[in-house]
Amino acid sequence: MTLQPLLDQINHDARGRFGLGKVAGYIPALAQVPAERFGIAVATVDGTLYHSGDALQPFSIQSISKAFALALALQRYGGELWQRVGKEPSGTAFNSLVQLEFEQGIPRNPFINAGALVVVDALTSRLSAPVHALLENMRLRAGNPAIRIDHKVAESEFEHRYRNAAMANLMKSFGNFHNDVDTVLRAYFSYCALAMSCVDLARGFSFLANGGRCVTTGEQCLSRLQTQQLNALLFTSGLYDAAGDFAYRVGMPGKSGVGGGIIALVPGRFSVCVWSPELDQYGNSVAGIWALEELSRALDLRLF
Amino acid sequence: MTLQPLLDQINHDARGRFGLGKVAGYIPALAQVPAERFGIAVATVDGTLYHSGDALQPFSIQSISKAFALALALQRYGGELWQRVGKEPSGTAFNSLVQLEFEQGIPRNPFINAGALVVVDALTSRLSAPVHALLENMRLRAGNPAIRIDHKVAESEFEHRYRNAAMANLMKSFGNFHNDVDTVLRAYFSYCALAMSCVDLARGFSFLANGGRCVTTGEQCLSRLQTQQLNALLFTSGLYDAAGDFAYRVGMPGKSGVGGGIIALVPGRFSVCVWSPELDQYGNSVAGIWALEELSRALDLRLF
Amino acid sequence: MTLQPLLDQINHDARGRFGLGKVAGYIPALAQVPAERFGIAVATVDGTLYHSGDALQPFSIQSISKAFALALALQRYGGELWQRVGKEPSGTAFNSLVQLEFEQGIPRNPFINAGALVVVDALTSRLSAPVHALLENMRLRAGNPAIRIDHKVAESEFEHRYRNAAMANLMKSFGNFHNDVDTVLRAYFSYCALAMSCVDLARGFSFLANGGRCVTTGEQCLSRLQTQQLNALLFTSGLYDAAGDFAYRVGMPGKSGVGGGIIALVPGRFSVCVWSPELDQYGNSVAGIWALEELSRALDLRLF
Amino acid sequence: MTLQPLLDQINHDARGRFGLGKVAGYIPALAQVPAERFGIAVATVDGTLYHSGDALQPFSIQSISKAFALALALQRYGGELWQRVGKEPSGTAFNSLVQLEFEQGIPRNPFINAGALVVVDALTSRLSAPVHALLENMRLRAGNPAIRIDHKVAESEFEHRYRNAAMANLMKSFGNFHNDVDTVLRAYFSYCALAMSCVDLARGFSFLANGGRCVTTGEQCLSRLQTQQLNALLFTSGLYDAAGDFAYRVGMPGKSGVGGGIIALVPGRFSVCVWSPELDQYGNSVAGIWALEELSRALDLRLF
Repeated sequence: MTLQPLLDQINHDARGRFGLGKVAGYIPALAQVPAERFGIAVATVDGTLYHSGDALQPFSIQSISKAFALALALQRYGGELWQRVGKEPSGTAFNSLVQLEFEQGIPRNPFINAGALVVVDALTSRLSAPVHALLENMRLRAGNPAIRIDHKVAESEFEHRYRNAAMANLMKSFGNFHNDVDTVLRAYFSYCALAMSCVDLARGFSFLANGGRCVTTGEQCLSRLQTQQLNALLFTSGLYDAAGDFAYRVGMPGKSGVGGGIIALVPGRFSVCVWSPELDQYGNSVAGIWALEELSRALDLRLF
Repeated sequence: MTLQPLLDQINHDARGRFGLGKVAGYIPALAQVPAERFGIAVATVDGTLYHSGDALQPFSIQSISKAFALALALQRYGGELWQRVGKEPSGTAFNSLVQLEFEQGIPRNPFINAGALVVVDALTSRLSAPVHALLENMRLRAGNPAIRIDHKVAESEFEHRYRNAAMANLMKSFGNFHNDVDTVLRAYFSYCALAMSCVDLARGFSFLANGGRCVTTGEQCLSRLQTQQLNALLFTSGLYDAAGDFAYRVGMPGKSGVGGGIIALVPGRFSVCVWSPELDQYGNSVAGIWALEELSRALDLRLF
Repeated sequence: MTLQPLLDQINHDARGRFGLGKVAGYIPALAQVPAERFGIAVATVDGTLYHSGDALQPFSIQSISKAFALALALQRYGGELWQRVGKEPSGTAFNSLVQLEFEQGIPRNPFINAGALVVVDALTSRLSAPVHALLENMRLRAGNPAIRIDHKVAESEFEHRYRNAAMANLMKSFGNFHNDVDTVLRAYFSYCALAMSCVDLARGFSFLANGGRCVTTGEQCLSRLQTQQLNALLFTSGLYDAAGDFAYRVGMPGKSGVGGGIIALVPGRFSVCVWSPELDQYGNSVAGIWALEELSRALDLRLF
Repeated sequence: MTLQPLLDQINHDARGRFGLGKVAGYIPALAQVPAERFGIAVATVDGTLYHSGDALQPFSIQSISKAFALALALQRYGGELWQRVGKEPSGTAFNSLVQLEFEQGIPRNPFINAGALVVVDALTSRLSAPVHALLENMRLRAGNPAIRIDHKVAESEFEHRYRNAAMANLMKSFGNFHNDVDTVLRAYFSYCALAMSCVDLARGFSFLANGGRCVTTGEQCLSRLQTQQLNALLFTSGLYDAAGDFAYRVGMPGKSGVGGGIIALVPGRFSVCVWSPELDQYGNSVAGIWALEELSRALDLRLF
């Protein structure tokens, strides 16, 4: 297989794109991350791992955690969850309260902030220690017990929580938020503050490329159908307001975070994680999207 | 003067309009108020008082307090206050977050909930005891030291605070809310929970009809210009989403509350308060608006 | 009376504000108007006329015509007209389609473009020659048979009609527009393209300051009640998205146009027209608003 | 292959879902279509055709034509087209003007009405006879020279054109509409009024399942990359406001029309068309979506 030289080439070329975006600056802990980093890791469904660049360096996974939180919630709630959150693309910026108000407190999908807050609220109702549960699951999936939460990041996010608090309170006014707002926000920010590397994340999400079965542990995390459904939602809504463009350019289900990471996957073949901190205007990693587009082109990975 | 027989006639006829609206039911403490009540009181600028019907019975003043809070804030901040809240009619329902999001956390005017929350936040920054201050001011203006806050109402509102909390948090995310959200909400709900009668309110707002000078105490509460400006804002924005219709039908500056009270005034002549708990679809007292329209017609009070 | 020296003083001082705004440039015919012009005219209800500066120079009245079109429509439809157009301030920019879509094709008030289009559509249904009718009425009211329509302006507006055509078509889709779109647009743009001077306009709108009776002809144009109602709507909605600020600063009912003219009035005393082509961000004349504020301050004209 | 018995079974069972939706009634020509019809046709990439039920009966393809018009426009414009229309899901009802106004006349994607109007406008600029071109293309792709336009439907749509005219005019006001509005609307409604059967449509869209090569004629209609991109957009935005739900339940790229037809496809395997006139609240065929879900389940067709 020629995957390793391809990743090395992508790693080399991606660095030529440094300087085209901006590192997330809304909290100090993220703003301090060095801009000129790039890593890529691929975990195949037969258990082989390839990586290149800064693929072992942990970074703040941020919204990538939303995909994992949804998987946990689907395990516990199944289809019942969809009474509280929609499956449609949002069509507006990821943090907008407008749609939430017009649609009576039901967020459009689980990958916008409001939707993820409902997911974490649901997990809080059924898990005695929701942060611990997600952390332990991630460690198992990634085969790395050293994964940890960066509490400095979580605390900094909590100090800037007001827009998320506004959404949680608005949903509470519509009866779609059941626990104490600050408690859920703390769990939500802890999820976002997980520090993981490209290798951790490629392994951690391998179950989505493998019909729901974790490549690392062999455990069936989600049913095959649930996995297909989660991937469909990632395809239509995983990249904020740029999901259509990502589908058009890359053609894989994916999820990005403002830490500069993006996970994506080719069902039956592999999961992949790229990382580079500089973001475009939609909050997605510039070099990361370029790298996935290049990978998709080189391997002819588009699904359609 | 034929004012007393006119008020008696209006009191008699207004009772024929019972049954056309609905008592506010969003908190139990308000829902329990008997529907079939009507009171009217007029306080002239020369100090004479006229009243008829249930004009001595205290009721929850609710949003009428927003006009008084604004007067207090103008005393302390003057024109500086307008950096944090607009002077334009809102054009959307009084509790909408949409406009607040589009306009970067600056509420359209001080009489929608978001605007009143900013006003109370501003008072909280400059008054050590903002609830005490407003209560004492109201007692002085109305000449009634027995005016009190109905803590049961305030507590019940606080328990249903989520939409207001959403607005406060949203404004905080834009930097336009300086104090602890729950602290300000408690003060805000205390203001709304003032229990006052038509007579109290007609007297309490007499300064707005008297160029800023309190008829009861002779004190100059606001400058003449500030008073004219406050009245202009009441005229354009005082009745939620029905301000234009009220201007068209009644033609006076006014402010309503979901407790069923409405204060209005004719500059240089008198302030008036009506009360009847049944509300129309805009949250304004059905019999109250009718009574003011009748008063306006009978005395030819329209300003234009 | 000291009105003449006051107007001269205002004319002198207003010219010091040249350069602070921008002449409307969306059609060539308006963009060519010289920027440094100022005129003011006052027509008292006893028939005296005062003016200063460029008060005899005709300019494009633009949206000021909306107030006159509404008066004509009220003559023909009375209260029935309010089934097709609201009385509430709009709360959004004057040409927004958003509110029109949310509110099922009923414009918020007759002074935003959509509302004026409904008014002209209504006039078109009941008048065989709506343009002729408005023109003749204006000539009568102003006592100036030389008033004419600037067809170059009207034609230029029609060539740039697309946003107005969008609104008309949207209302037609909701059943609130009865005549051919282009026919009504041509009438509407002809109204806007009336070329009148400050003196013409002050005289032309004197009936609004005089309980509905035209000072020039003695004719009762509107009933006293209709006049009060029209003035109330001008007060709450006459200056686009700056109505609240105008109420606060000037305190009179008024109507502005992007040609730089503003009419305003003090019931029982006089109507006034100012003109200066440079506009602020809301589309209102910079020097014009300043002049009215100054007049209001000097004569203590505020209504409240 | 067991496809024929499966289609027969689906045809049988789908009829049990009659009565759960409503036939489109906004124009008489569509409202007259009998409700209780169901057809399904599958065209494999190796040229075999399977069908069951009312699969040979022509119906009004309506918005399905938007996918074909986009293919034609991509042939003529390539990526340049995306300067005038976006690739993102809309997040609001398919005929909303709100987003169009906020986003300066650039429609969110080519499958909402506004986006399709821009596509037809673009075709009108580069084709001397855009209606003829699309009709002839469809006949070639489907191998059926008898396909025709139902002019009664087209005319009826044109008579109810006002909302579409509003959108076209709004885009024209932003400079994103180049031809005469009514000319483009007539072409657009002619496209929508194509009368085709399930068999016609399954064959007509086989190029989307076959890497851009028409199964009927062997012609390369679109490049392989363009085909993948068009399919990605169908997946994210093809079913109006229910695209996410369709992706979740069916998991194929697809396009629906208010005539009750839906086309979908499995890349490398087949294209499929279902038809049943009763629609759900989103304007999609009730029995049609159920049939595709059943097909997807039975053949395990989900892409992820």
